[in-house]
Amino acid sequence: MAKEKKLVEQITSMDEDFAKWYTDICKKADLIDYSSVKGCMIIRPYGYAIWENIQRILDTRFKELGHENIYMPLFIPETLLNKEKDHVAGFAPEVAWVTHGGSEKLTERLCVRPTSETLFCEHYANIINSYRDLPKLYNQWCNVVRWEKTTRPFLRSREFLWQEGHTMHATAEEARAETVQMLNVYADFHENDLAIPVVKGCKTPSDKFAGAEDTYAIEALMHDGKSLQAATSHYFGDGFARAFDIKYTDKDNKPVHPHQTSWGCTTRMIGGIIMTHGDDRGLVLPPAVAPIQVIIVPIAAHKEGVLEKATEVKNALAAAGIRVKMDDSDQSPGWKFAEYEMKGVPLRIELGPRDIENGQCVAVTRHDGEKHFVSLEGIDTTAKELLEAVRSGMFAKALANRERRTYVCHTLDEVNEALKNGDGFVKGMWCGEEACEDRVKEVTGIGSRCVPLEQEQLGEVCMCCGKPAKKMVLWARAY
Amino acid sequence: MAKEKKLVEQITSMDEDFAKWYTDICKKADLIDYSSVKGCMIIRPYGYAIWENIQRILDTRFKELGHENIYMPLFIPETLLNKEKDHVAGFAPEVAWVTHGGSEKLTERLCVRPTSETLFCEHYANIINSYRDLPKLYNQWCNVVRWEKTTRPFLRSREFLWQEGHTMHATAEEARAETVQMLNVYADFHENDLAIPVVKGCKTPSDKFAGAEDTYAIEALMHDGKSLQAATSHYFGDGFARAFDIKYTDKDNKPVHPHQTSWGCTTRMIGGIIMTHGDDRGLVLPPAVAPIQVIIVPIAAHKEGVLEKATEVKNALAAAGIRVKMDDSDQSPGWKFAEYEMKGVPLRIELGPRDIENGQCVAVTRHDGEKHFVSLEGIDTTAKELLEAVRSGMFAKALANRERRTYVCHTLDEVNEALKNGDGFVKGMWCGEEACEDRVKEVTGIGSRCVPLEQEQLGEVCMCCGKPAKKMVLWARAY
Repeated sequence: MAKEKKLVEQITSMDEDFAKWYTDICKKADLIDYSSVKGCMIIRPYGYAIWENIQRILDTRFKELGHENIYMPLFIPETLLNKEKDHVAGFAPEVAWVTHGGSEKLTERLCVRPTSETLFCEHYANIINSYRDLPKLYNQWCNVVRWEKTTRPFLRSREFLWQEGHTMHATAEEARAETVQMLNVYADFHENDLAIPVVKGCKTPSDKFAGAEDTYAIEALMHDGKSLQAATSHYFGDGFARAFDIKYTDKDNKPVHPHQTSWGCTTRMIGGIIMTHGDDRGLVLPPAVAPIQVIIVPIAAHKEGVLEKATEVKNALAAAGIRVKMDDSDQSPGWKFAEYEMKGVPLRIELGPRDIENGQCVAVTRHDGEKHFVSLEGIDTTAKELLEAVRSGMFAKALANRERRTYVCHTLDEVNEALKNGDGFVKGMWCGEEACEDRVKEVTGIGSRCVPLEQEQLGEVCMCCGKPAKKMVLWARAY
Repeated sequence: MAKEKKLVEQITSMDEDFAKWYTDICKKADLIDYSSVKGCMIIRPYGYAIWENIQRILDTRFKELGHENIYMPLFIPETLLNKEKDHVAGFAPEVAWVTHGGSEKLTERLCVRPTSETLFCEHYANIINSYRDLPKLYNQWCNVVRWEKTTRPFLRSREFLWQEGHTMHATAEEARAETVQMLNVYADFHENDLAIPVVKGCKTPSDKFAGAEDTYAIEALMHDGKSLQAATSHYFGDGFARAFDIKYTDKDNKPVHPHQTSWGCTTRMIGGIIMTHGDDRGLVLPPAVAPIQVIIVPIAAHKEGVLEKATEVKNALAAAGIRVKMDDSDQSPGWKFAEYEMKGVPLRIELGPRDIENGQCVAVTRHDGEKHFVSLEGIDTTAKELLEAVRSGMFAKALANRERRTYVCHTLDEVNEALKNGDGFVKGMWCGEEACEDRVKEVTGIGSRCVPLEQEQLGEVCMCCGKPAKKMVLWARAY
């Protein structure tokens, strides 16, 4: 019991200090560790297993849509990075530079890729010749480096893992359709697999990706009322194609620049899972990406028949394709409960002598702590139903939090008044001027997150300057 | 026909220029492309799909044996790299150094990981406390960088992809058993999945991994008679544990240094596949890792019923879990034959109107060019049997090449005489002195590859100095 108590005591309450609560979970749930490499993190097996599940689901979807995986070099020569002017301006301040190989100084500096548009463009210039070569639908799973000043596990680290899709299309229409299609893939993945409700939108011009014509993003509201940009999808037009001299001959034998997209999501999503679903007992994982979906804890395991029955249940669940673990170690049940709650295992099954006598077990759903007394007969089907109930319950809970924290405002005074209830999404009209974005930030502390694709007509005028409004914008403080 | 002819002409014959034949295949089979990043390669979708299949098979085996995946930082601070003296001496001359982040000079240089022993050790020092924490069985799939002077696709490039297992054990016995177990995993994978016969052995002291007590390797003989080190497995003893102050308290509450292993294999294996199985018509892929296992080419596809039947066959094979593709493009059958031969697809199914009338199809096995007339009934089972026949046929062919090129020699004169027949494996006795290894190399051009685990007593004396022999060594020229 001493150890159990210690475990629970070790977590800061999220209401007391949300940032500390967050890093506590990262450490105590064995997701990450620090090292002597400043600003970088070690992703420990339990954290990495979440990432592997994310990869598997997304990779399958990408491939179903015709994308192929590829691997590009880690390094980008400085001259290559400099080819597209907006792009280099955006990234040069935050790249790591390799200057020496062994004991020799390099004749040209190489940056460690912060993103790979330039490498893909150079390759596309080599392999795209005819309209028959299009579209090219490539994706890469890899590590990237951005030299951030302040870092936090998963949310912002100097090195992170991600996928970057880079596609080339014959027409602008096709490329635009791809951009939106991939935004929808990310949105569906978040809502259906991660149980995280998202808002799909377009970034304002000041917030676009370096070199993009349009940047789309999905924004998710975290438990503390701040917004997390969870994935992005960019439409580049033919800007990079012109800079890199990528051309194809169309059916009339004329040279044309193709149109381009890129889209990505990162290990940051694990931070989103923590801050959307976690609670004061630790992590709460959506079943689709949980390394362990069901933990079986035998009660009074020394009594005859308990371990046998628990093993039987484990085998039945495993055979049904459920990721299941039985903990028959010599720790107390109380310690085990706390441990797997900390690790966010969606469903716990407790099984003791009396349960077995009654042909039942106790199933506890992590996200709401509810106890379900369920029959051992058909336990595989019941467990699947419960996991689906967990998923929809987690989504509903997250959505309720978002709705509770979404404010409709018509003036900056209304914004400041609303935010007294705590951070959240503010829906407000905007005239389209960057000056108003800046002023909203200055006066209220929140910034434009995106122009939601689903627009609402909340009023006629900009909530900042009072001039005619063009769009409804989603505003929030952001990670 | 023009295009078909051109394709065939484009490959250099392997007998004419083996090195050129190799790079021709890398390019023409769409495995790689070059970029402006010197010494690094782009792994194109067809090449990367081979790597994904390799990863899937090995990753499953590692996990079945209890290993967990983890992700460590890309960078290693110079002081951390310097902690184990032999290790840094081995790697420092060939690492890439990051000296600047954005516009700022770093206070300490960071090397881009050439291997991650130092990072794993630092982490292990943090998380290993008690005998209950052991063993730790970690693995990492990642990119590494070694600043090579001369590079070749897959075989030697400045950046490559690999996995590196790093494990910690309570006793030397356990760690030694792990080292040998993982060597066997690699050997089985090569022989059963890649159809590449290998020799398992121990490196001589001069050829050990930097910091290791023992280095095991598997050596495979390539088509040109040179040896390829295909994977390695190292036993470290407690050398790193001492350097990094890693200790656990044993059951008697005494502090003890744990014992360590590491083991790895890389994208180099794709080079091994090319040079073991390829021929003058291109790549020949072992079915287990072939992105396309069966290619279906409809003949006279415009005739009634041909495409329908071909699609039916495709669906039957896909349902049986075979990676199958149908090429119904408007290229000629001859062009398609050459194209998929170049790409090394293990089995081609040709299906025309007359075949359909006869209820059969023509199945051509890539490795020997044999035509098989097989019934369309039960084509899924037949295809599986043929793929298995391809695997064993490829292994037999490679083994025959190796046996043909393996020479037993008792003196250096015999070695020089044998090598007149072409490069190959030389089996010869060795006294154990490094001076003799050097002299063998100087006089004959071949070096010690390993001390095979399966020893043969070929004679009593060293083939170089004539003093009493200790071991039979496998000698060869190497990649």
